[in-house]
Amino acid sequence: MEQINQFSNNWIDEYHEGARYGLRGKILVNEKSDFQEITIIDSPRYGRGLLLDGCWMTAEKQEKHYHEAIVHPALCSSKNLRRALIIGGGDGGTARECLRHLSLEQLDMIELDRRVVELSKKYLNCIGGSAWEDPRLKLCFEDGIEYVNNLDNDIYDVIIVDGSDAKGPAKGLFNKIFFQNCRRILKSGGVFATQSESPESFQKIHIETIKIIREVFEYADPLYGWVPMYPSGWWSWTFAAIDSPRYLEPIPNRIKAIKDTCHIWSPTWQQGAFQAIPAFVERELNK
Amino acid sequence: MEQINQFSNNWIDEYHEGARYGLRGKILVNEKSDFQEITIIDSPRYGRGLLLDGCWMTAEKQEKHYHEAIVHPALCSSKNLRRALIIGGGDGGTARECLRHLSLEQLDMIELDRRVVELSKKYLNCIGGSAWEDPRLKLCFEDGIEYVNNLDNDIYDVIIVDGSDAKGPAKGLFNKIFFQNCRRILKSGGVFATQSESPESFQKIHIETIKIIREVFEYADPLYGWVPMYPSGWWSWTFAAIDSPRYLEPIPNRIKAIKDTCHIWSPTWQQGAFQAIPAFVERELNK
Repeated sequence: MEQINQFSNNWIDEYHEGARYGLRGKILVNEKSDFQEITIIDSPRYGRGLLLDGCWMTAEKQEKHYHEAIVHPALCSSKNLRRALIIGGGDGGTARECLRHLSLEQLDMIELDRRVVELSKKYLNCIGGSAWEDPRLKLCFEDGIEYVNNLDNDIYDVIIVDGSDAKGPAKGLFNKIFFQNCRRILKSGGVFATQSESPESFQKIHIETIKIIREVFEYADPLYGWVPMYPSGWWSWTFAAIDSPRYLEPIPNRIKAIKDTCHIWSPTWQQGAFQAIPAFVERELNK
Repeated sequence: MEQINQFSNNWIDEYHEGARYGLRGKILVNEKSDFQEITIIDSPRYGRGLLLDGCWMTAEKQEKHYHEAIVHPALCSSKNLRRALIIGGGDGGTARECLRHLSLEQLDMIELDRRVVELSKKYLNCIGGSAWEDPRLKLCFEDGIEYVNNLDNDIYDVIIVDGSDAKGPAKGLFNKIFFQNCRRILKSGGVFATQSESPESFQKIHIETIKIIREVFEYADPLYGWVPMYPSGWWSWTFAAIDSPRYLEPIPNRIKAIKDTCHIWSPTWQQGAFQAIPAFVERELNK
């Protein structure tokens, strides 16, 4: 409490509607790319971290909460697992978790902002790690919305949308047309996954996003978890499929390959996280 | 991002190991009681809020995340529900949620610090609300650790420990002797509940607390939820029982009485929240 009103020049905060979350640390990089402001910091608590347009994206010692949650429910449950797509994900954490699944033959990653990848490789290499050198990773710098629009049908076993908040360059990743294209390029036994914001700090967009995805896909459900550095710390990802709610049932041999080395994810955790839908969201979705 | 390094004299922050969570607002009360520093603020985002020794306790527009989570899994599942005990809970939110269960005949509330209740009644009245006037509430200002030590066996159908972090005046609420006394004064069909800290920001005490409670009670399990204003936003409560893990199975007529007016809690949410145990905690508990 003694620190109230203290002039703190070593705190880096994300501000969100009258609340803030900050880490003590120092700024290593702060630059404007063609698309956004990119900031890389170093903090005693969570190591190096990344902000885009002043919003926390990830940090070395906190990134598994997000990356395990968006990746494994999808990659453990698609009928086949040969070719997957990541839209966004420039820090490399989602790619790294995907590539732990050895049956995956090709991982296409479409990132809008080349500078995010360049700076992540240089400063946050422990997040992407060996993913950047993995021959299965095909990295392209282009607009993911255009990319999915131009593709033929039935290409991917898994599609993961790992973008930032529903504003600025990531806004189009929450549109119905985008989801329709994702469904079109997904194989019938495939699984789609996207981050779907906080049910607390982005309540409206969270609920709207689930509703739109349910209009587009035959099956879709939110999963709830935690990313302490994001607004409210309470976060969601929404999974969707065409032929069945197969994302609810991870396949035993894929579980076996990863579960002993996950920090958060386990089949038990996943089952709970799909079920832990707060009452106010459940009521809105049932309207 | 433009606010980095800004001298902000209107932010009230809790600092925790190199991270901080703050609300924009103003301080209404800041005083030292006999036990702790009590601060009451007003914020545009979450209305009025309470801090003890510089740590966020509750706020008007965020309190249900905590109070519904600690109360309903216990009060919906004890064999009988005539007499319940709250240790702590000075803001009145836990009492208010308990008293929604109309079969409850007597609710004893043992709060160490009279000033927390006095200030909560004056400034945070929408949290305690009608609970303060409810004739079923028996409020005593004394040390909860002494209270449970001096009581006869088999008194309560439900015991809820709603204290602050495991330091300062609340430290003794995490001791084995305290839990043993709670088990002793609990009826055999009763349910015990306590806040058990964040698995992220208080990982060690979280895991230790579950282990100790499992040594004392025949059945005990953690439940995971969210309190955005607490360190990491990720929080836990641990429930325990003597005759069966009855806290896992809420009783239909008690569900019916509350579910339409809960913000977070529902039987579905509760089931998920008990199951959403993160892999690293599950591994530690199974050692």
